[in-house]
Amino acid sequence: MTRRIAEVLKNGQPDESVKVQGWVRTKRELKEFAFVEVNDGSSLANLQVVLNPDLPDYAKVLKQLNTGASVEVEGVLVASPAKGQRIELKASAVTVYGEADPETYPLQKKRHSFEFLREIGHLRSRTNSFGAVFRVRNACATAIHKFFQERGFMWVHAPIITASDCEGAGEMFAVTNFDLNNVPRTEKQAIDYGKDFFGRPAYLTVSGQLEAEVMAMAFTNVYTFGPTFRAENSNTSRHLAEFWMVEPEMAFCDLSGDMNLAEEFLKYIFKYVLDNCAEDMEFFNQRIDNSVLATAENIINNEFARLTYTDAIALLEKADKKFEYPVSWGLDLQSEHERYLAEELFKKPVIVTDYPAKIKAFYMRLSDDEKTVRAMDILAPKIGEIIGGSQREERLDVLQRRIESMGINANDLWWYLDLRRFGTVPHAGFGLGFERLVQFMTGMGNIRDVIPFPRAPQSVEF
Amino acid sequence: MTRRIAEVLKNGQPDESVKVQGWVRTKRELKEFAFVEVNDGSSLANLQVVLNPDLPDYAKVLKQLNTGASVEVEGVLVASPAKGQRIELKASAVTVYGEADPETYPLQKKRHSFEFLREIGHLRSRTNSFGAVFRVRNACATAIHKFFQERGFMWVHAPIITASDCEGAGEMFAVTNFDLNNVPRTEKQAIDYGKDFFGRPAYLTVSGQLEAEVMAMAFTNVYTFGPTFRAENSNTSRHLAEFWMVEPEMAFCDLSGDMNLAEEFLKYIFKYVLDNCAEDMEFFNQRIDNSVLATAENIINNEFARLTYTDAIALLEKADKKFEYPVSWGLDLQSEHERYLAEELFKKPVIVTDYPAKIKAFYMRLSDDEKTVRAMDILAPKIGEIIGGSQREERLDVLQRRIESMGINANDLWWYLDLRRFGTVPHAGFGLGFERLVQFMTGMGNIRDVIPFPRAPQSVEF
Repeated sequence: MTRRIAEVLKNGQPDESVKVQGWVRTKRELKEFAFVEVNDGSSLANLQVVLNPDLPDYAKVLKQLNTGASVEVEGVLVASPAKGQRIELKASAVTVYGEADPETYPLQKKRHSFEFLREIGHLRSRTNSFGAVFRVRNACATAIHKFFQERGFMWVHAPIITASDCEGAGEMFAVTNFDLNNVPRTEKQAIDYGKDFFGRPAYLTVSGQLEAEVMAMAFTNVYTFGPTFRAENSNTSRHLAEFWMVEPEMAFCDLSGDMNLAEEFLKYIFKYVLDNCAEDMEFFNQRIDNSVLATAENIINNEFARLTYTDAIALLEKADKKFEYPVSWGLDLQSEHERYLAEELFKKPVIVTDYPAKIKAFYMRLSDDEKTVRAMDILAPKIGEIIGGSQREERLDVLQRRIESMGINANDLWWYLDLRRFGTVPHAGFGLGFERLVQFMTGMGNIRDVIPFPRAPQSVEF
Repeated sequence: MTRRIAEVLKNGQPDESVKVQGWVRTKRELKEFAFVEVNDGSSLANLQVVLNPDLPDYAKVLKQLNTGASVEVEGVLVASPAKGQRIELKASAVTVYGEADPETYPLQKKRHSFEFLREIGHLRSRTNSFGAVFRVRNACATAIHKFFQERGFMWVHAPIITASDCEGAGEMFAVTNFDLNNVPRTEKQAIDYGKDFFGRPAYLTVSGQLEAEVMAMAFTNVYTFGPTFRAENSNTSRHLAEFWMVEPEMAFCDLSGDMNLAEEFLKYIFKYVLDNCAEDMEFFNQRIDNSVLATAENIINNEFARLTYTDAIALLEKADKKFEYPVSWGLDLQSEHERYLAEELFKKPVIVTDYPAKIKAFYMRLSDDEKTVRAMDILAPKIGEIIGGSQREERLDVLQRRIESMGINANDLWWYLDLRRFGTVPHAGFGLGFERLVQFMTGMGNIRDVIPFPRAPQSVEF
């Protein structure tokens, strides 16, 4: 039976017969024998295979075993004299499934830039960096499900195609079945959406929160974990047009319970990844960003500071530091302000609460002062904002007032308002951008390098 | 601390003080006291709460506790004299969070049709049937992740927006940022896709398989679990425009390994749901379809039959049964044929392999006879086709020939062909429609009733 290389490296004993399958990373030919490093994606480390000239077809096989070739190796494990590896595999039989011509295979031994690797997105996962990124990504995703399922939360699949347009149409992609060469028109020359697939304008969702609230009103604790979209034309290292979001929603929960869950959640995810991807995280710390392990430890080991937006503004105004953007009650915090609070002042994660109502969304619960809402953002050192959440407005009349004052069409939200008409409860939730999490965790500079197939302006290849 | 009702029903002991929160399902007022059934979505069963007149504000509270009202109850557990429940909760304090006016709340005690409930998709999860459906759905989803993660498979997020259009554009939704009132044109009056967000036509994906193959060529074993789309204008009880698919892909794997995994996978999921949602499955068996438990046991306990398409055709030709659709080598099997094989002939799940190349997709591996491909479909009693898979064509020249003969544009697939140029390996995978699985498992007649927010022609509400 074939074994995975990570498992062999961990458990394999000298004299054991094993069979592995994978792709050649490097080949070193010496006079008496040759070394081939084989990787099957299960770990950063390769299994070193030793080929002796007594192997059948030694010369031919050796010629085929270039970087990128796929191979099956049977043999016996032996203790390795080399530094940094416990065992190696002495080959007794080698099958080459597919070669990779060194003249044309784009992934050669030398280091490639992430920009170049983005152009060969179908091959980049075969490198050390992307192998590590996607293992960490998988561990994060697994930890997220594990965290919520252990606590009795139901995974809810929020719809991808939606007719709700609550956050501003400019940033939403349209979904249509129209022939764009010939968009049907009404007699008055308006677009005849009645003839489109859904009978009305449809978009790609920007958030599953409103639907998560529907489900929380029946199952108490739920979470979404699915793709969301922004048609924002920003070519930055922190934006994607398509990204995954995690959005828990809890009935019978206030802002304080929301903050408790979010803090516990972040600690759990970071700890899970440190425990399960130690080798990959070590790699990131050495090669990508030498602060990622310290940041993870900081998040895991510190009680998060909690303060109101009003107090945060006071601290920023007192700060012995010149900011680029103005600090003033009523203005949103900028990245430089957030980082100052988390990195310089508190030196640990900080939860800022109770933001001005004017700069926050319509569904956040209005406080008695009528000026602030029960919102919270979690700011982490080196990271900035990583989670945003709020207690939701559960009072029908206040919600209606907020919707009206923000110029949103209440008719589109009839079902959302119904949740406040029938058995309404205090409830709260938060959102986490999954790729942001993976980016911060790994220290990768560009968010396009933490999702297998990034979508961004002018970029939809593979 | 608040406890979930499922947990209290399971573990609660007489004389224990507990606090629960949930929504009122029914109220029964007797002379001396009143019963209120409270449900928090954690289980099908409600917790019976006993209200005595010595409760503060008894009359007022009782008036508020109509079906749908949200409530917090503190009290002491007592052994229940009633049939079918071990314990009940004697209330000492009741807080009503939100009322539900019996005049306007659409979910009253009487039974509602699924058609009616679809119109109130934001409330239907508060019924017994939909509560059970979505708990089973969550258990299925959890089992899928558990199965693959335990076996070292990586969860891969295939892209939702894609430029690949391999399965026929007619069935794909377009994704665009164009102002449909004013679609930009080139000088020659063609649509100027260069001005759209992605710089070229973009669609919603119909399958993550091709991208899963990319990832399997680096990580060996991967699976996708995400939304996919069909713009098919079919208003049936088995089609959705938006649905979730599970697509594992394994490098170094042939059709036989693929079938083994698929069989193990199905057994695992059904067993997990029977073990974890016994009460809900019992409910479906009693109220929705009295064969669902037997079907689940059939899948779990039988070794799946395996036969070739050619043998299946021979058996169908011999069958003492009149079929509506013709049976002839080269024609696809129809639902009636599939059900005959699984239900009447084998009386257990059947895997049919080696279909005619002409009726299957370009990426399936051509056999030496050049007439069949290494495809497989799993047919289950009462269900029909539940899984479709294949070994993939890993030989560059054969794949190119197939692409050409099927009139597909090879330029769009340059990266997919590269996988065969560099380190190609035998590999295989399959696809499972997640909603079909939940539908079959629960016996629900309409697939729109097993996804929280169904999308179908003219249907995109909530």
